[in-house]
Amino acid sequence: MPHARKPARAAEAEGRIVVYDAPFTSYGETVAYCVNGAVEAARVGAVASLVRSVASYSMQTPHTGGMRYDAAVRKIPHAAITVEDAAMLRRMQQRGERIVIRLEMSAHTLPDGESRNVVAEIRGREQPDEVVVLGGHIDSWDVGQGAMDDGGGSVAAWEAVHLMKKLGLRPRRTVRVVLWTNEENGLRGGTGYRDRHRDELDRHVLAIESDAGVFEPEGFGITGADEAYEIVKQVGALLERIGAGTIRRGGGGADIGPIMREGVPGMGLNVDGTKYFWYHHTEADTIDKLDPREVALCVAAMAVMAYVVAELPEPLPRAPVS
Amino acid sequence: MPHARKPARAAEAEGRIVVYDAPFTSYGETVAYCVNGAVEAARVGAVASLVRSVASYSMQTPHTGGMRYDAAVRKIPHAAITVEDAAMLRRMQQRGERIVIRLEMSAHTLPDGESRNVVAEIRGREQPDEVVVLGGHIDSWDVGQGAMDDGGGSVAAWEAVHLMKKLGLRPRRTVRVVLWTNEENGLRGGTGYRDRHRDELDRHVLAIESDAGVFEPEGFGITGADEAYEIVKQVGALLERIGAGTIRRGGGGADIGPIMREGVPGMGLNVDGTKYFWYHHTEADTIDKLDPREVALCVAAMAVMAYVVAELPEPLPRAPVS
Repeated sequence: MPHARKPARAAEAEGRIVVYDAPFTSYGETVAYCVNGAVEAARVGAVASLVRSVASYSMQTPHTGGMRYDAAVRKIPHAAITVEDAAMLRRMQQRGERIVIRLEMSAHTLPDGESRNVVAEIRGREQPDEVVVLGGHIDSWDVGQGAMDDGGGSVAAWEAVHLMKKLGLRPRRTVRVVLWTNEENGLRGGTGYRDRHRDELDRHVLAIESDAGVFEPEGFGITGADEAYEIVKQVGALLERIGAGTIRRGGGGADIGPIMREGVPGMGLNVDGTKYFWYHHTEADTIDKLDPREVALCVAAMAVMAYVVAELPEPLPRAPVS
Repeated sequence: MPHARKPARAAEAEGRIVVYDAPFTSYGETVAYCVNGAVEAARVGAVASLVRSVASYSMQTPHTGGMRYDAAVRKIPHAAITVEDAAMLRRMQQRGERIVIRLEMSAHTLPDGESRNVVAEIRGREQPDEVVVLGGHIDSWDVGQGAMDDGGGSVAAWEAVHLMKKLGLRPRRTVRVVLWTNEENGLRGGTGYRDRHRDELDRHVLAIESDAGVFEPEGFGITGADEAYEIVKQVGALLERIGAGTIRRGGGGADIGPIMREGVPGMGLNVDGTKYFWYHHTEADTIDKLDPREVALCVAAMAVMAYVVAELPEPLPRAPVS
């Protein structure tokens, strides 16, 4: 739903409920209907909007998620419906039925409360002021347990550092695990970290995020200088025996986004995402969906990557400031 | 839960809610906790019982289903919970937490209403009084759409006969499609058919049921004489090119059970059941779960089996009455 393009049937929206029945393609593309749907529907006079859940599979499973309003546009109710219900509404419409929907919603935004990032680190042996930061986020939506998004990712990062401690490994640089808060609804943990650590960001060698679910790990994606990519590929080679050695160009994460925009090289743990958008932001995001073996492999991948980058003779090269 | 064996921890049940957290093995074995759970829990003094849904996969998906009371035992509330919630209760108990459950249920049994089987047939060309009956059931539980259980099975049987009509095929014997009512909660359609057609049951050559979901068909299972099995295996050979040629010993269906017990050979359509107990008796049993190609293959399998058996020079041999 490009912001500028007027919906094809905009004239029909006046005084009605708009249903976005967009099939899942990629998360990035499909989530736009969830995020921007209310604003765009209100712009053309709709009284409410419904969006087909951003889901690659459904068992009558509604998916919640972030959305935005625009101060210049009337705020209308906006809700996600299941894939099945969206399909049913479409069939009813195709049959020419008059569809009446009664919306009862109780969602509302409470005032901000205080929250904190959780931070732990192993101080570097030689360059304690140079930092490899890794983490996931500890907040989740109010459905399910947030086991995949991002309890498991938090554990993968935490246990990676715990593993170094258990093995008595103290790398050249500091390894710092951060469990960010409020990723889902404002990114306050990530921006707060950036603000509080602004003075040391130029000595942040790498930031690694695990927030794509905890499944069989495939490798990492990196956003940074070509030279850094070449080095990290060599680290990836160490992970090939567990199938987690593929290093791609591009990657990062929402929580590390604010420090990446300040020049910190960023990296995301890539996993087999086949089922991630089955569970993401749903009641079904529960602990039973995590496979202990896959969690252990993610811990191993995070540990090896963070440790070796923290141990390199020289800091990971940064892209020249343009 | 064998009827006679006292639960290991029966003494703890007095005045409490019993939770049956039995993992899914086979449907037949696991559903016993759903069917008999209330009676067995009440016998040892429980005030209610909960059963882990009979499910081979769950996305926080409760499964409804039939249950029974025993006139000699107090009737207590009985409900299914999700696999995830059963696991959570178990974890809480293992941690030694005191668990308080507040049950609010509104399920109740209404007086019987009138319903009917739907029957259509192609009268046999030479032996119209000899019948091959095939069908599924048109009732379903009040969750989902009953698309798999058993809308799709009903369509598979109905379209099989419709296909003969479209092709201008009139077999030697009568082919009769029956969409049975009330399979799920009393089997009145199946018993009603038996009672109304009692006079012609000895000329029912075969009864075929499709009530195992509509997925890729694998073949059929037959309950009947060895000679009938050998003949049906030859019919199966015609279905090998669509992968539906495997004929197994044993099979039938709930709706045809009453006439099978009167000596009618019975047969069930076997399909790839991998996902059937994902959807069975849930909100997720919706039309989108059916693959049109797989439905068409089921129609083909049902049509070929019913037609050829109706066309055989001699009726399918019956087992000698013992």
